[in-house]
Amino acid sequence: MPHHDLVIIGSGSGNSILDSRFDDWDVAIVEHGVFGGTCLNVGCIPTKMYVYASDVAQAVREASAYGIDASIDKVRWPDIRDRVFSRIDPISAGGRRYRASESPNVTLYEGHATFTGERELAVAPTDGGAAATLSADRVVIAAGSRPTVPACIAESGVPFHTSDDVMRLDDLPRRMIVVGGGYIAAEFAHVFDALGVDVTVVTRGPALLREQDELVTERFTALARDRFTVHTDAAPTAAEQRPDGTIVLTLAGQGTVEGDALLVATGRAPNGDRMDVAKTGLELTDDGRVPVDEYQRTGVEGIWALGDVSSPYQLKHVANHEARVVQHNLLHPDTPRATSHRFVPSAVFSHPQVAAVGQREQDLRDAGTAYVSKVQAYGDVAFGWAMEDRTGFAKVLASPDGTLLGAHFMGPQASSLIQVLVQAMVFGQKAQEVATGQYWIHPALPELIENALLGLPLDV
Amino acid sequence: MPHHDLVIIGSGSGNSILDSRFDDWDVAIVEHGVFGGTCLNVGCIPTKMYVYASDVAQAVREASAYGIDASIDKVRWPDIRDRVFSRIDPISAGGRRYRASESPNVTLYEGHATFTGERELAVAPTDGGAAATLSADRVVIAAGSRPTVPACIAESGVPFHTSDDVMRLDDLPRRMIVVGGGYIAAEFAHVFDALGVDVTVVTRGPALLREQDELVTERFTALARDRFTVHTDAAPTAAEQRPDGTIVLTLAGQGTVEGDALLVATGRAPNGDRMDVAKTGLELTDDGRVPVDEYQRTGVEGIWALGDVSSPYQLKHVANHEARVVQHNLLHPDTPRATSHRFVPSAVFSHPQVAAVGQREQDLRDAGTAYVSKVQAYGDVAFGWAMEDRTGFAKVLASPDGTLLGAHFMGPQASSLIQVLVQAMVFGQKAQEVATGQYWIHPALPELIENALLGLPLDV
Repeated sequence: MPHHDLVIIGSGSGNSILDSRFDDWDVAIVEHGVFGGTCLNVGCIPTKMYVYASDVAQAVREASAYGIDASIDKVRWPDIRDRVFSRIDPISAGGRRYRASESPNVTLYEGHATFTGERELAVAPTDGGAAATLSADRVVIAAGSRPTVPACIAESGVPFHTSDDVMRLDDLPRRMIVVGGGYIAAEFAHVFDALGVDVTVVTRGPALLREQDELVTERFTALARDRFTVHTDAAPTAAEQRPDGTIVLTLAGQGTVEGDALLVATGRAPNGDRMDVAKTGLELTDDGRVPVDEYQRTGVEGIWALGDVSSPYQLKHVANHEARVVQHNLLHPDTPRATSHRFVPSAVFSHPQVAAVGQREQDLRDAGTAYVSKVQAYGDVAFGWAMEDRTGFAKVLASPDGTLLGAHFMGPQASSLIQVLVQAMVFGQKAQEVATGQYWIHPALPELIENALLGLPLDV
Repeated sequence: MPHHDLVIIGSGSGNSILDSRFDDWDVAIVEHGVFGGTCLNVGCIPTKMYVYASDVAQAVREASAYGIDASIDKVRWPDIRDRVFSRIDPISAGGRRYRASESPNVTLYEGHATFTGERELAVAPTDGGAAATLSADRVVIAAGSRPTVPACIAESGVPFHTSDDVMRLDDLPRRMIVVGGGYIAAEFAHVFDALGVDVTVVTRGPALLREQDELVTERFTALARDRFTVHTDAAPTAAEQRPDGTIVLTLAGQGTVEGDALLVATGRAPNGDRMDVAKTGLELTDDGRVPVDEYQRTGVEGIWALGDVSSPYQLKHVANHEARVVQHNLLHPDTPRATSHRFVPSAVFSHPQVAAVGQREQDLRDAGTAYVSKVQAYGDVAFGWAMEDRTGFAKVLASPDGTLLGAHFMGPQASSLIQVLVQAMVFGQKAQEVATGQYWIHPALPELIENALLGLPLDV
């Protein structure tokens, strides 16, 4: 049985741990799917390439508001798809090649890993054949997550897509049912609608983007209802396909919806449940994560975890941070660093775009925290006028003394604008000093932030 | 002769001085043109509304790069124009009405003011008639600036436009000559080109945007040459109009250029030279500004100045700041505040967009300052991939210890992204702590900043 200094399970964020400082380590990487992880292959990177194409298509559709009559002559779906994957697939292949044959100290196992003991693994090769076993002094579990699919769909025999494959469709369907109400559903609903697909969104919950601040949830859902057919409080109970190919989804108490393609975007589950981690003595958290402490240690000597498989945040920027922490702690076990999950921003690249950092108003209210808030409309600052924006806003939450508690943007450039407030929160700057301590270009969009901060009814 | 507690010359930033704290002051405002100043009527606000419409038109023109074949069916110029001015003109009219008839303590003089003594003025009514004279305990000169026009054009008798009137054209011309190489020329060249006008840019200098960092100047000019007909080192020497209406501009050593409309955008001159300020004992600076100290005082007791007429920055956000300083100093003469011109950002809303703060590389080199720099391409961060951006960049300049010295952006959202670095510079944050001390949403555009900062070859 081969023994390694370090085994990394997963080739996404885990792969980034290895730099030249590990050149004299005997390292194994285990990858059961496409090399490079979710973000590169089926997540952040390709989705945003689609989103941007759809943003452009949407801009064409909305151009008449600015006095520009424009029309879409043709959506070249194969070209969009091939532009994305002709860029991404070679990166994945190059990453694989580098580890498979150009990193002398690294062994790439292509298969699915399950634990057989504390730091012992069996790897069932992806292309079949007998499982290999291996052991290591240290194991990093960076095995990511996977799309979940409700049983009534998974077991129906009806063809369906997830974010893993929907971007590689041969052709655009005429009608698409999107099941789910979170950010993945919101992004793909935008992508396909903007490209001309008739989109129906179906979600069990009462609204879309329920993880956001309540005002974002409410306003985003209202806009989605204007744009798509939206069924809320609608749990799918059955799926069938007619002989003509039409997919029919039955919703509890709400009849049926039809489409030519079905996208399931109901969330992602950490992959720890498929690895027999109990063999190490570990128990998964109630929500299925591999538990770690602040140093990304699992509690079993020599086993670390990071990213979607263990993190409360299924976000690449958090996984990258956790990977850097694990990297340091592998190299410097006597002076370990802790992970920081303070002020983690996130964005939904839908239309409108959404971005958030810190606490939500409902959190503050539920906790009985004293706070003040200001909702500043894009349409009330000069660049928002220019954009003819009528729905976007920035909502800022602060303590009465100006300490920033949360920020929630919905509108153009939300994912860029939020950074100013991430920075302010991290460095402990108060609302009033951020607003008045610097120049804000007139008439640029950050005046939205300036005005939101100035509008807070502080008690100072 | 009426005597006032305060006379404000100009109804732009100067008008914003008056709030309820001045309700028991006898105040006069003198305005010789349209109420509300340059920014509202002929500057920042309307130009950005045109720019955004043109950004949308340009997005349509460039959509095929994303697999979206789109076309512009019609540019409804009258609708674009009327959208802008139906929004702005009522604001200007409302501001005028408020001061003319709804502010009991304010007298609005509509005419051109010239000094007849230290705090004595003659106002020649805009609608003709005899000049009024008035005096005041305090005078605020906030008279702004005006477009300059080279004599060979001004005296030629050939019809020409400036930023004051070009946005109100009856129809789009087929061909437009834009004279000038600064930000106003760059913005209007984009506006009209995107709307379908054949644009020729003529500038005396060797490049466009010469006030920017040398890399921005070089790359922006190269892109402009791809898009417009650009004549550099080309001083106009004569202008004539043919019987068919064609305007012919003769360029020193470079033959002639032709157009159906002529826009002069060669800069703006402070209006102090038209006010006989010498009568107060003041002498204008060599570049024509009313000189002020850090408290916005002119040196003549009781006379302040602010904004374009006196500031080294012809920027509305600076004028607003100076107006707040003057406001405070009028109300609290014994505890005056000083103006801060530290870290003044600015932007050019052309295509690509440009934004800058702090020092330029040529400044640092000329001063012999030790510095390091990093140029980060948009195309090398994930969202830049999505945008298919091939020309944009962020350039960051810092001391070897990480103290930020300057930042220069050229590309999408430049005017938004720069705010992160304005904030960092104002609050004295170093490159390394800004880059690594906070989360940057993956894959949002601020990763451009993160990577620029991480790429600085610091000596720490």
